[in-house]
Amino acid sequence: MVIWSLRAIVKARPAPGAELLDVPEPSIRRNEVLVRVKATSICGTDVHIYEWNDWASSRVKPPLIIGHEFAGEVVEVGRDVRGLAVGDSVSGETHIPCMRCEQCRTGNSHICDNLLLRGVDSDGCFAEYLALDETTAWRNDKSLPYEVASAQEPLGNAVHTVFSGGGVEGKTVAVFGCGPIGVAAVGLCSASGAEAVYAVDVSEFRLRLAQEFGASHVVNASTDDPVKEILGRTGGRGVDVFLEMAGAGETIRQGLKVLRPGGRACILGLPDGPVEMDVTNDVVMKGITIHGIYGRRMFSTWYTVASYLRSGKVDLSKLITHRLRMYDYRKAFELMKSGQSGKIVMTP
Amino acid sequence: MVIWSLRAIVKARPAPGAELLDVPEPSIRRNEVLVRVKATSICGTDVHIYEWNDWASSRVKPPLIIGHEFAGEVVEVGRDVRGLAVGDSVSGETHIPCMRCEQCRTGNSHICDNLLLRGVDSDGCFAEYLALDETTAWRNDKSLPYEVASAQEPLGNAVHTVFSGGGVEGKTVAVFGCGPIGVAAVGLCSASGAEAVYAVDVSEFRLRLAQEFGASHVVNASTDDPVKEILGRTGGRGVDVFLEMAGAGETIRQGLKVLRPGGRACILGLPDGPVEMDVTNDVVMKGITIHGIYGRRMFSTWYTVASYLRSGKVDLSKLITHRLRMYDYRKAFELMKSGQSGKIVMTP
Amino acid sequence: MVIWSLRAIVKARPAPGAELLDVPEPSIRRNEVLVRVKATSICGTDVHIYEWNDWASSRVKPPLIIGHEFAGEVVEVGRDVRGLAVGDSVSGETHIPCMRCEQCRTGNSHICDNLLLRGVDSDGCFAEYLALDETTAWRNDKSLPYEVASAQEPLGNAVHTVFSGGGVEGKTVAVFGCGPIGVAAVGLCSASGAEAVYAVDVSEFRLRLAQEFGASHVVNASTDDPVKEILGRTGGRGVDVFLEMAGAGETIRQGLKVLRPGGRACILGLPDGPVEMDVTNDVVMKGITIHGIYGRRMFSTWYTVASYLRSGKVDLSKLITHRLRMYDYRKAFELMKSGQSGKIVMTP
Amino acid sequence: MVIWSLRAIVKARPAPGAELLDVPEPSIRRNEVLVRVKATSICGTDVHIYEWNDWASSRVKPPLIIGHEFAGEVVEVGRDVRGLAVGDSVSGETHIPCMRCEQCRTGNSHICDNLLLRGVDSDGCFAEYLALDETTAWRNDKSLPYEVASAQEPLGNAVHTVFSGGGVEGKTVAVFGCGPIGVAAVGLCSASGAEAVYAVDVSEFRLRLAQEFGASHVVNASTDDPVKEILGRTGGRGVDVFLEMAGAGETIRQGLKVLRPGGRACILGLPDGPVEMDVTNDVVMKGITIHGIYGRRMFSTWYTVASYLRSGKVDLSKLITHRLRMYDYRKAFELMKSGQSGKIVMTP
Repeated sequence: MVIWSLRAIVKARPAPGAELLDVPEPSIRRNEVLVRVKATSICGTDVHIYEWNDWASSRVKPPLIIGHEFAGEVVEVGRDVRGLAVGDSVSGETHIPCMRCEQCRTGNSHICDNLLLRGVDSDGCFAEYLALDETTAWRNDKSLPYEVASAQEPLGNAVHTVFSGGGVEGKTVAVFGCGPIGVAAVGLCSASGAEAVYAVDVSEFRLRLAQEFGASHVVNASTDDPVKEILGRTGGRGVDVFLEMAGAGETIRQGLKVLRPGGRACILGLPDGPVEMDVTNDVVMKGITIHGIYGRRMFSTWYTVASYLRSGKVDLSKLITHRLRMYDYRKAFELMKSGQSGKIVMTP
Repeated sequence: MVIWSLRAIVKARPAPGAELLDVPEPSIRRNEVLVRVKATSICGTDVHIYEWNDWASSRVKPPLIIGHEFAGEVVEVGRDVRGLAVGDSVSGETHIPCMRCEQCRTGNSHICDNLLLRGVDSDGCFAEYLALDETTAWRNDKSLPYEVASAQEPLGNAVHTVFSGGGVEGKTVAVFGCGPIGVAAVGLCSASGAEAVYAVDVSEFRLRLAQEFGASHVVNASTDDPVKEILGRTGGRGVDVFLEMAGAGETIRQGLKVLRPGGRACILGLPDGPVEMDVTNDVVMKGITIHGIYGRRMFSTWYTVASYLRSGKVDLSKLITHRLRMYDYRKAFELMKSGQSGKIVMTP
Repeated sequence: MVIWSLRAIVKARPAPGAELLDVPEPSIRRNEVLVRVKATSICGTDVHIYEWNDWASSRVKPPLIIGHEFAGEVVEVGRDVRGLAVGDSVSGETHIPCMRCEQCRTGNSHICDNLLLRGVDSDGCFAEYLALDETTAWRNDKSLPYEVASAQEPLGNAVHTVFSGGGVEGKTVAVFGCGPIGVAAVGLCSASGAEAVYAVDVSEFRLRLAQEFGASHVVNASTDDPVKEILGRTGGRGVDVFLEMAGAGETIRQGLKVLRPGGRACILGLPDGPVEMDVTNDVVMKGITIHGIYGRRMFSTWYTVASYLRSGKVDLSKLITHRLRMYDYRKAFELMKSGQSGKIVMTP
Repeated sequence: MVIWSLRAIVKARPAPGAELLDVPEPSIRRNEVLVRVKATSICGTDVHIYEWNDWASSRVKPPLIIGHEFAGEVVEVGRDVRGLAVGDSVSGETHIPCMRCEQCRTGNSHICDNLLLRGVDSDGCFAEYLALDETTAWRNDKSLPYEVASAQEPLGNAVHTVFSGGGVEGKTVAVFGCGPIGVAAVGLCSASGAEAVYAVDVSEFRLRLAQEFGASHVVNASTDDPVKEILGRTGGRGVDVFLEMAGAGETIRQGLKVLRPGGRACILGLPDGPVEMDVTNDVVMKGITIHGIYGRRMFSTWYTVASYLRSGKVDLSKLITHRLRMYDYRKAFELMKSGQSGKIVMTP
């Protein structure tokens, strides 16, 4: 294939912002496929890189094509690839495992000792073409719209979080943080037999989305005390499951307070700095279990996501609130920062 | 309380049939409550006793008031009872555990070493009043209609079966046998995130019920081969979960054939006599897990049942196809035998 | 039985200390047995009450017979008791559950909503006789010496902690805190297939005990950095399982640092006040699981303890470092405070 | 590397027996290493192929180098190999998964949909050199003797079987079948906290080995009834765990009879033909769980094996009863058939 110039969103310099630049078409290795990107979604991580926060500036080495959530069409196939063909619709796992460490060899690639992140440690997907290795490729159902397929990774985070440590059948659940992952978690719980789902956030926009996805009760933590609200509505008993998707010390503490004895907490959010917890009263004497959740299980999580999308029990398209072209990326990033969005999809 | 004569359905003689007889009002012990029966449901076990099959004639000692599924109102409370009050709506677990054996002391009362069955080993509920010990009593939500409350034990069987060994989120399920428990299982799976539920039976009446409860596909095994049908519809992969609720060697074998490698089988049905299985190919080399399911977990199963009834995610009232008065019991038993019924409720 | 005066260690006043006083023989209820106490053990909780710390002074209502770890002989049996007979050797669970709340009815009595503690909320066992209800009674193997039987509750704590969330077969384990429970945990891990057990404490006396129970490596945290030591000895990988039995924020943080990605932490210790944790790096991104551990499972934990005592795979008698008569209780409590003891047994 | 002639044990014709033939040195692919074989072990599967039974004749396509258990030294490394170096000691998993099917992508490679077996579907290890792909290679600890390393796959089978569905801490276990895997299982259980291990076989030679590995009781099924013996010794209660390693219908039935209610059965043996089971009484009403066990989990099983070998808690060298040179292979196969052997090691 002739190499010509293509556009991509590039972190060109170690400073805030990003640029739409011409880049060469990627060449593929034996174990890779070339993907024509059809749709991408923006994640909070992309915003961190765009804004160039402490984490980003210590990790990302410009120049780099950013972005990691995508769906596209396979247009070329490396000679060692066996499971993919030209014309396939594919997405890709952001977490690129080494497949050789103890974690990878025991089914825990999501916490690989040598984990690389697409769009962080290597070129990403906010581009017209992408080289994708077979190991992290995921073939989408043909019938799945590209824009939905590009947004399935947050549903994957939700699947991994909600079902870690057991199901939610007949259980009450509190979801703290109603960004796209939190809203997807609300939808999953609701579709999976939960008796009630309490959704907590500070944004009315997001709480409305949570309600659309089946939240039984929403609590705006900027005006109401979630602990008082949830304990009140559960007759003081608390909930069976607490999902932390806000990434704050305060929400972790609140969630543990509303968790019943013997309950389980699944923490996906990444709080800045140390978190103070009342370990004695909220963890030990209540006999609870806490699960730290990172990424998605490769690829059992993806199979579960595909299943919910096939059955239609979670309608991810309702999570997509904005659709833009890639050249409008500045507007997209501003929208992300406003809190007035669900999932934002960009097309090349 | 004055003792006067009340009516009950009594197995009076070691022979087929039963009689509606006058019986004295039961007196209660310190740890019991007196229950005015409001609604009862008929179970297959009752039919076995009514018909006086081999199992029944070897176990039941007439005279005995039969029946074990019920709901009623507490009208008197024994002095050691702490958790129940006059006016409460109660049902009761059929399995009466000793609470002292190893199983009982390790949370496995449902397989108590000294298990007694209500309506089989001691007087049952097809009566106007019932003495109920606090240990096996279950307090119903006030808002739950008595007739639904009387039918929650089969939903309990379904809960115990469906969720043994994991959830059904994003999974495909095959339910063999669509009696009331099978239909309840279909409803539960459908409400708990299953991608697809295949329901198998030989009765069109029951398959229609299964469809009402959310079966994605129904297979009439009297005309179609369930193995061929289910493997065909799953592209040869088979299902993730197989629920055996028919109690036959043939359905066990068929279910194992349609189960994917690594899947789980939950067997609730009680086949007569030995069952031939292809252990090498269908169990070992596929690496599956088989769970034997008996009764309901006390009382985690009941909590889950209550939760589904509260959320309305399983509508048990749709399972009740006939409502009769107790004096019509002969008609009720005939209906049970016809296969043209879901759950039959009798009121005193 | 004639009531005469007997001696017991009594918290007579809301102040430090305790007194050896004459008390009446307890009378038993229908569901209780009368136990002639043969041996008792002192627990840290007893020391808190003796010293009258904040927790004790806010909870304990003098006068009260203290003590909760014991073994004795049944000398009288209440009329509703079915599972115990005169002559039986018994011990008793300290945690007295209500048996009626949701936790109790779902196999989680150890975190009962209405939990009472023997020797804290009701009269205890540092006495010649004790009334013991059948529900919390545990019948000991006849061949088990009374002094060992009196010390099995800490082994129970160890069993509950070590095996929560899985086994230790082929795993590496770090035990922080080598009081009697910690030492018992070391012994359990060593007897249960652990590849290596790292024991951490600040007392050489206790670390020597840990070594006797099979610790592969001991770390004196007063002179060495446990994090550096354990990461060093595991090639930077860390351990599979971290058991917190010291009850301090610092040991929780250290333990999480030496835990490998995907590992599990079981926290039994009760730190005073809030604990700061690096949730992002040590919990979420490592994908670990944390189990809060309280008490012992009733009674699966006790069955496991009995099994280890029967097989001799954990030799609890080696944990008993001192044996005194009850009238020497002041000396016993001083020994407890010195850190120069394992388990201290008192006989009436 | 120059290609010269080397010797290997070859199934040259579709008939009983095998021949020691000259073969070319294997050439390696990019993802493979060349291994100089240092030690091999014989497995029952090899005997089936040698004897040319029904299974073998329907599956194996001569000519083929047989054998699959080995340890050797890496002498050449393919260019895409990252985790192995010249001089490494390696063994290899017999089960060669495709790494692309649903099973492989969800951590269940051991039941891969497209599984190939080394020494059955492709050339094996009874040779001087072997080409080994990195995916199925296992790097041994340097200190592990080659002969022990060649025999670790049966220990792997034992690990997979013993720990499927939970641990054996404080549990009683019945092992039916004391071939090398059964004996290894006895050793594992004994080293992992089991209270008692009952070993059943018809060979006194093997039962003596089982005793050496820690069996508490042995039952020779040719003279005693294992059901009567084990129920008798457990006071009628039965055992917590039943491990089937004999591959016979009779042992499956016996094992289920001696399993306590709520227990677990792990079946590794491969019975010929259908097996009759009393599903109602032995599976459903006892509420047991049955695990079909195939191969070894890749590679969590291998990590556990390595751990037991490192700690020395299972001494696999005691399992090796005979050591021969490869040219004595006929004698080795005869020994295997005699039942008078543990593991037989052959060196090139």
